[in-house]
Amino acid sequence: MNVHKFERLKNSFLSFFVYSTVRSATIKSHRVGIAYRLAQIILLVYIIGWELILKKGYQAFDSVSSSVTTKVKGQGFVPINATINSSLNKNDPFYYEKLFEIDEKKDFRLLDTADYIIPPNEYNSIFIMSNFIETTQTQGVCDEEVSKPKAKCYNESDCLSLGINLNSWNGIPTGKCVNSSTTPGVSVCEIRAWCPVEHESERNEDHLIRNVLNYTIFIKNDVEFKKFKKKERNILPFITNQYISKCKYHNINDPYCPVFQVDYILSMAEPDKKQKYQMLIKGGVVVIDIIWECDFDFNKQCLPKFGFRRFDTKETNTASGFNFRFANKFRMYDKEYRTLFKAYGLRFIINVSGIGGKFSIVPLMMTIGAGLGLMSISVIIADCVMLHCTKNKTLYQKIKEGEVKKDLLAATTTSSMLNNEF
Amino acid sequence: MNVHKFERLKNSFLSFFVYSTVRSATIKSHRVGIAYRLAQIILLVYIIGWELILKKGYQAFDSVSSSVTTKVKGQGFVPINATINSSLNKNDPFYYEKLFEIDEKKDFRLLDTADYIIPPNEYNSIFIMSNFIETTQTQGVCDEEVSKPKAKCYNESDCLSLGINLNSWNGIPTGKCVNSSTTPGVSVCEIRAWCPVEHESERNEDHLIRNVLNYTIFIKNDVEFKKFKKKERNILPFITNQYISKCKYHNINDPYCPVFQVDYILSMAEPDKKQKYQMLIKGGVVVIDIIWECDFDFNKQCLPKFGFRRFDTKETNTASGFNFRFANKFRMYDKEYRTLFKAYGLRFIINVSGIGGKFSIVPLMMTIGAGLGLMSISVIIADCVMLHCTKNKTLYQKIKEGEVKKDLLAATTTSSMLNNEF
Amino acid sequence: MNVHKFERLKNSFLSFFVYSTVRSATIKSHRVGIAYRLAQIILLVYIIGWELILKKGYQAFDSVSSSVTTKVKGQGFVPINATINSSLNKNDPFYYEKLFEIDEKKDFRLLDTADYIIPPNEYNSIFIMSNFIETTQTQGVCDEEVSKPKAKCYNESDCLSLGINLNSWNGIPTGKCVNSSTTPGVSVCEIRAWCPVEHESERNEDHLIRNVLNYTIFIKNDVEFKKFKKKERNILPFITNQYISKCKYHNINDPYCPVFQVDYILSMAEPDKKQKYQMLIKGGVVVIDIIWECDFDFNKQCLPKFGFRRFDTKETNTASGFNFRFANKFRMYDKEYRTLFKAYGLRFIINVSGIGGKFSIVPLMMTIGAGLGLMSISVIIADCVMLHCTKNKTLYQKIKEGEVKKDLLAATTTSSMLNNEF
Repeated sequence: MNVHKFERLKNSFLSFFVYSTVRSATIKSHRVGIAYRLAQIILLVYIIGWELILKKGYQAFDSVSSSVTTKVKGQGFVPINATINSSLNKNDPFYYEKLFEIDEKKDFRLLDTADYIIPPNEYNSIFIMSNFIETTQTQGVCDEEVSKPKAKCYNESDCLSLGINLNSWNGIPTGKCVNSSTTPGVSVCEIRAWCPVEHESERNEDHLIRNVLNYTIFIKNDVEFKKFKKKERNILPFITNQYISKCKYHNINDPYCPVFQVDYILSMAEPDKKQKYQMLIKGGVVVIDIIWECDFDFNKQCLPKFGFRRFDTKETNTASGFNFRFANKFRMYDKEYRTLFKAYGLRFIINVSGIGGKFSIVPLMMTIGAGLGLMSISVIIADCVMLHCTKNKTLYQKIKEGEVKKDLLAATTTSSMLNNEF
Repeated sequence: MNVHKFERLKNSFLSFFVYSTVRSATIKSHRVGIAYRLAQIILLVYIIGWELILKKGYQAFDSVSSSVTTKVKGQGFVPINATINSSLNKNDPFYYEKLFEIDEKKDFRLLDTADYIIPPNEYNSIFIMSNFIETTQTQGVCDEEVSKPKAKCYNESDCLSLGINLNSWNGIPTGKCVNSSTTPGVSVCEIRAWCPVEHESERNEDHLIRNVLNYTIFIKNDVEFKKFKKKERNILPFITNQYISKCKYHNINDPYCPVFQVDYILSMAEPDKKQKYQMLIKGGVVVIDIIWECDFDFNKQCLPKFGFRRFDTKETNTASGFNFRFANKFRMYDKEYRTLFKAYGLRFIINVSGIGGKFSIVPLMMTIGAGLGLMSISVIIADCVMLHCTKNKTLYQKIKEGEVKKDLLAATTTSSMLNNEF
Repeated sequence: MNVHKFERLKNSFLSFFVYSTVRSATIKSHRVGIAYRLAQIILLVYIIGWELILKKGYQAFDSVSSSVTTKVKGQGFVPINATINSSLNKNDPFYYEKLFEIDEKKDFRLLDTADYIIPPNEYNSIFIMSNFIETTQTQGVCDEEVSKPKAKCYNESDCLSLGINLNSWNGIPTGKCVNSSTTPGVSVCEIRAWCPVEHESERNEDHLIRNVLNYTIFIKNDVEFKKFKKKERNILPFITNQYISKCKYHNINDPYCPVFQVDYILSMAEPDKKQKYQMLIKGGVVVIDIIWECDFDFNKQCLPKFGFRRFDTKETNTASGFNFRFANKFRMYDKEYRTLFKAYGLRFIINVSGIGGKFSIVPLMMTIGAGLGLMSISVIIADCVMLHCTKNKTLYQKIKEGEVKKDLLAATTTSSMLNNEF
């Protein structure tokens, strides 16, 4: 009995190692054969060429994690007590160059980084002020700006009925109707506010900061691919402090210099000269792309690529430009004052992206698995051609179904004779 | 010989174009057939309906890259020399409305954007101060706040033994024990610090900024799908400056207006009225989601969707709210002073997400490949039903194994007679 | 006729439910069987063990969306009118400890959070100033710093030819050549600038802020998995205000305390003591990783993990450290002054990442589909072994092709006798 039991156990163990192969029948039709091989080749080229080699299907990927610090250098100038030369003509081809001209004979105020970078320290972003409206104010009552909706009045009742909820106004109406201090002959409502209110002239170009285009931005970018424990930085090993102090980025002549001139960035992001100067006057948003594409398999050096694009739209009618207000508070003779700035300028967003790849068995298996699934398309195509697009389709049908047995060799012989179907 | 060689070469070339089809056997059992077709239909519906059509398996996707600029409008009021009406009862159903009431007869201080937005310019985020504690200080010695741990003392030895490493204190003990200036009859350690120290009363509601709920936030969002070179912005073509100055966002009545009232945002993010006002008093974090889901295949217009959710927790016991301290420094009579603000308020985080899709051959092939892999499940199910859940399973087993040949037709006939197994 | 039509319709309907099974042939070669089963087992272990269980192929995933608020506590000290003890020797093993020593007898200035956090409120980031150079300036003319390139001069012509576009200078040359106020006997060009200019001594350690290592950072992190509508926060339910006021994070002793000591973070991010102190002196960038890996299937508690790593490089030669300039403006006797700070310090970037998973039918189907595709590898391997690596390969070829019919049983018997091929 024991021998029998052992025998049975052995048998069932052995039967586990039985392999059941799929039966096939050789079809010697060239039409079918070519369709089959062609489909196979196309699929193989696609899977190996595209998915495996071009898309690096054998690699595991990691996206970059990044830290950016920036440092701006350069001095800006604002003429003191000088208004724009009113003889300047907007149709002059050098209108904007003349607008930003520096007249060295005139008295000017100097602005350095601590003045024009607001806030002084931002993460992944930097704002450079290029134009501003400055108003020194204190809390009190004064006349509202003429341009505000419903600000003009004829008698006190016009101002009394306004309520306090006027978000676009500079303050709350006191109910009085007073003469405008800026537009003679016009009466406006009096308001409680920071006084006097900010007056935005139509040509807000008196405080244009000259020399902004000559500023340089030094960008220090450290990146890390956590999965592969690899660190890279845009200060390449050959770059010395000496080199940094002299070089300027140029996409062809000096593509790895980490110092960028504002003029160069703006010209790349906005090739249109008029639009470029408008960005200085009205403000604008520019994205500096730093792209790291690293392949850690073949000891290649991993180098950053830079790109510049304008992010805000060119439309000048609806909500274009970029500006915000900030204030410096101070006390004089025990009274609180503030200097209100409406700052126009360039917001640079530093957008670091990138992907690093390294050989890994897991994605390789995934690509092979998906590829094998796709390879079955060639069988479907060949079967389809065989059963529908050949003269011998009924014969092939029978061969496939196993109803033809002895005739098999004959059939294939026939097929090879039937080369005319090719 | 040459002829033979050529013949052999030709043969081996032709043999490359030989296709080996898989042999099959038709099983006419309805049970098996239905199982097979049912599985196939379910899989097809899943692959075509879900993966291809609903999940847009024929599209390549790109996530959005975004730039946000914001502009807040509105005036806040803080009464001067006025404390909260102590007769106010917390159980009054309009307690919070009364707390934030504006008494126009009283004297008040006006705060505008340059006062309540801190810092003035942030990327993807904005902070609106809605409550604050203000203390004017200079460096010197003064009494520590009574509430600090171990601040109370009976004699100098209590203060001498403290060391200097007291992170929660306002300064460093000098070693003296002095009378508290705020709580009569209590002695506290004297400290070197910015003096006098900030005193947080239990009801820190004296400087509640009124009218915050009426502020409006204008959000300008430019997005780009780099892969498809498409730019979109939330200022839709029909929106004029005129329209912006008047409209207010409402999810049904005006879903594309880029101007949002703080009250509306808060009400959507926190429907509970008490909690909403607590957010103004103690600070809170609100996320404004802007979702761009763009389909570039059928010339559809791509429109943003907005969502509002509260991000900080409602728990009021542990570390709730949002506040931080900042200081304005000034000099008076050659001495350095600062105005310290403990600012409570609303931090709005603008979270732009989105996906754009466009037809591409690569993902289509991927979806088809994966689908074909999945389709083989129907064969497995049918084989399983055939070999285990039919009466004729041994016959089918034999047919599959090719041991039945002549009997094939008979077998299938039998099977079609055996409809009772159905 | 109608009966016939109905019959035909019925037949074509029934024929739809016909299942065509693939014919197979049992191969009893153990070599083939073992290769087949081995391949199957390896693939199954890979698919089920790795893809399904370890990689959680049955779950849908969502990445975290996060909000971080921070609060720093601690006082910094800067000695007044005290320069570094020049007898300090850089080779002293306790050089850095002595450099940062607090001499309680000396007079000092106290800095609190409102002084050393710049800007006061940042999103996902915090900057703590640990060293600074302070210069009180007003607009005027003065001598340029000696160290600037080409600043030294022998006569006026050296300065006249410089032009105005000197980004690294502190101002614009007036054309005069004057004596340096800092380096006797040297002449430098005179500039228009904020005067006097900032003088960076070689040992910029006079204003080292003491006690920075004892500061604590309280991090409040709210996260949300939008897809699963789950909110988590790092203030775990058991954490009370009492507990927060006393605990300090330690990766083993107290891994859930949300209060982190700067010294602990720095020591984890930069184990080298000298480098750690250099980060305080010259500035540095540290990433605080908060990792949320949540499995919402088995009611597990979701707990955050913390990590600390230095992000800037250790190289001290090229562009190391982290610093920026900011200014406080004030007016004295109607003239505008500013206090310029060159701030060195620690930028902490709080990097929240995480993935939450929950059971979902869609990814389960995807994993099964991909797995089935991969399973076909075992068939390919077994066929390959059968047709190329066995003694009976021609017999098997014939069996597969269906040319052997009666001999099938005999063949398999033969194969089981041919155990020597095993």
